[in-house]
Amino acid sequence: MLVAVRKIQKALGEDRVSIEQDDIESHGYSEWSTSNSTGRPVAIVTPRSTEEVSAIVKICTEHRTPMIPFGAGSSVEGNFSSPFSGICIDLSGMNRILAFHEEDMNITVQAGVRWTDMNEKIKSANLFMPMDPSPTAYVGGMIATNCSGTNAMKYGTMKDWVVNLTVVLPNGTVIKTKRRPRKSSAGYNLNALFTGSEGTLGIITEATLKLAILPDETSIGVATFPTVKDATAAASKLIRAGVPLAALEFMDEVQMSVINQNGGAGGRKWTEKPTLFLKFTGTKDSMNEAIRQTQKLIPGYTSDRLIFASTASERESLWAARKEALWALLAVRPENTEIWSTDVAVPLSRLAEIVDLSKKESGNLGLFSTVLGHVGDGNFHQAVMYNPKDPEQYQAVKACVSRMMRRALEMEGTISGEHGIGIGKKDYLKEELGDSTIQLMRALKRSVDP
Amino acid sequence: MLVAVRKIQKALGEDRVSIEQDDIESHGYSEWSTSNSTGRPVAIVTPRSTEEVSAIVKICTEHRTPMIPFGAGSSVEGNFSSPFSGICIDLSGMNRILAFHEEDMNITVQAGVRWTDMNEKIKSANLFMPMDPSPTAYVGGMIATNCSGTNAMKYGTMKDWVVNLTVVLPNGTVIKTKRRPRKSSAGYNLNALFTGSEGTLGIITEATLKLAILPDETSIGVATFPTVKDATAAASKLIRAGVPLAALEFMDEVQMSVINQNGGAGGRKWTEKPTLFLKFTGTKDSMNEAIRQTQKLIPGYTSDRLIFASTASERESLWAARKEALWALLAVRPENTEIWSTDVAVPLSRLAEIVDLSKKESGNLGLFSTVLGHVGDGNFHQAVMYNPKDPEQYQAVKACVSRMMRRALEMEGTISGEHGIGIGKKDYLKEELGDSTIQLMRALKRSVDP
Repeated sequence: MLVAVRKIQKALGEDRVSIEQDDIESHGYSEWSTSNSTGRPVAIVTPRSTEEVSAIVKICTEHRTPMIPFGAGSSVEGNFSSPFSGICIDLSGMNRILAFHEEDMNITVQAGVRWTDMNEKIKSANLFMPMDPSPTAYVGGMIATNCSGTNAMKYGTMKDWVVNLTVVLPNGTVIKTKRRPRKSSAGYNLNALFTGSEGTLGIITEATLKLAILPDETSIGVATFPTVKDATAAASKLIRAGVPLAALEFMDEVQMSVINQNGGAGGRKWTEKPTLFLKFTGTKDSMNEAIRQTQKLIPGYTSDRLIFASTASERESLWAARKEALWALLAVRPENTEIWSTDVAVPLSRLAEIVDLSKKESGNLGLFSTVLGHVGDGNFHQAVMYNPKDPEQYQAVKACVSRMMRRALEMEGTISGEHGIGIGKKDYLKEELGDSTIQLMRALKRSVDP
Repeated sequence: MLVAVRKIQKALGEDRVSIEQDDIESHGYSEWSTSNSTGRPVAIVTPRSTEEVSAIVKICTEHRTPMIPFGAGSSVEGNFSSPFSGICIDLSGMNRILAFHEEDMNITVQAGVRWTDMNEKIKSANLFMPMDPSPTAYVGGMIATNCSGTNAMKYGTMKDWVVNLTVVLPNGTVIKTKRRPRKSSAGYNLNALFTGSEGTLGIITEATLKLAILPDETSIGVATFPTVKDATAAASKLIRAGVPLAALEFMDEVQMSVINQNGGAGGRKWTEKPTLFLKFTGTKDSMNEAIRQTQKLIPGYTSDRLIFASTASERESLWAARKEALWALLAVRPENTEIWSTDVAVPLSRLAEIVDLSKKESGNLGLFSTVLGHVGDGNFHQAVMYNPKDPEQYQAVKACVSRMMRRALEMEGTISGEHGIGIGKKDYLKEELGDSTIQLMRALKRSVDP
């Protein structure tokens, strides 16, 4: 491993390789993440181009040294852990926009571009890339985990926004998955194979992404309900009626109180009840029509219990409450505790039931726990605060999360709606997919990385 | 090969295997298809379940007999050709809807279900699967070619509608790619790997498909333009302004005259000029707003040159003109001629240029040729009528199509927007993707089918 480090130092220059303890720690452990390993990389390398990544990969492969691609480090399932040590390839130095094709509505970027920066830069062309995971995330990591976020209800997931990828394969070969057509049926869908492969098949170094037109208008609605079941039932009703929502998010009463404790995301005092956040986008007329449909479908929620934002700043403050949920949790977390945050997804009709059951069960732990979710996709997140050094607490939370995953599988759902598998959920993936399907995935992995 | 046929007869019953010359011909050759091989299968087998497909596949693999999955036979690039003979597995007997999950908005079907039949059956639940290739197509073939059609502009392509697949691998193993969540980031995206793999990685026997809510209202607009360039420029303008169109289709003056010759799709007499067909769907208010936007963006097209359908039957007749384009062509085709129909896709900004150039060049052939396309996706089709027995004509058309594909590649496009590669475009795929990418695809193929 150290020979590989020296070779990389020689190839890229000393200043591009760090063996500082702080760097190693910040690239090997994350307080945001549920799963961390005790392993740490021996060095952090910072390439600036696809060619440099290829050079690094060739050296690592030659010396049989594990490689861990690292983006913004905001994933939550231990996706960038280094259980077998190795060399961490930090892509933050690859943060250039390579080409913005305004008329084609796509953009080519390096993997280390932050999506929020990218969207800010193309805003004036009235375009944006609609996926919205953590505001800190990089494009490369977003693709590697097939991320989504609150906009998935309207815009799908990351795989739907990839036009082509430049990937460095485990032997150092550089491939490009496609040219730049908006639609294609030429050959195997390598875009989709690498999207969500979590760095196991190659390192994504560049990507061309589709862009969407920024909606003329956005409106946010917030509705509170007496119980979690009432809230999820209302959500199902809106979905099934085809109300053109851009997003449909749920936060439970605990999460709402956390938001209040943490300053209310812009100073608002929220009702601490199960709450739906609704986003409407489009032209003025179409948006107002969707709002009218919503008011009709959720009767009795016309006044204080169904609020609509009228100004841009009010709108931002309402939505900020949802987007800042994880940070609010981290801020109110007592010392020595960590957050076990995880997500599952089930068919729409089972969502109310699984949210209700999971909430009851995690409530029984006697620990602080909360539920929030992208209910428009049947996807929800549960977060439990616990002391990782207390073995009893650790085991209890682990068992509770495990039961939630099993329940999702029994309901024909998945153990991961959008965070990926990482090291946290490896054991359950086999249960979800069965031996034959896992064997096929292994065969695919071997064919790319013999 | 004959031993395999006998074993299959024994396993499934004599009546499920046909060696009739008519059957063999209709499963080995298609007048709809540009590319046909001289090879023919030795027998047609008609399984009724995944287990039967698995039994057939095991026998074929044991006897090293080529297998050709066959759906509705409506593909156009020789996707079901049998150049090395073998056994044709006709999935038309697998035409059952296995489970309709209305509340989850998905449906599980066997591969031989016709999408138009399926949509008819679930209409009363206000749901539909929005892909619209040939009305004859089966779900299995639609997935195998990653089909799309006119609705792709709003609803994406087939890969976006697959929740899970049951696939028989080349060794006979049956796998299921996922359970039934609407969203998932668990493991490699096998749905996308098999979607568009054209039967080369396994045989799709069952699929769960996402469904969408039927739009409240549909309106069709038709606009004629003096030149092809004017029409495609108007199309780009609408796309770039973000007008929420459900579909945006183009037909040239030749195609419009073919429609007239063929009865005008409901008796209408069309203006024989380059024409855009626009589809608007949604609620009444949102649709009317989109129509107003369109009228503003295409000035001077308010009266006779931009027609909107006001009644359902008028709407159907307008859209029928577009949907029946291929049939209209087949109907007016002179004896002894065939249609060389193919599709390419390019970045949006290059569409006007490539359509114009391709039209000029095919015009120079002195043959009957026409252009139509899903311009909302940068995807268009060219059809040339020629006499396949005239070697000079054949070579001239082949060279012309070849130049069109090269031009699409120079413009960073693809040689196939939605029809797949089949046997017709194999040689060009390497040019599109490069050696390394093709090698990766080969490695994937080998890993699944050693």
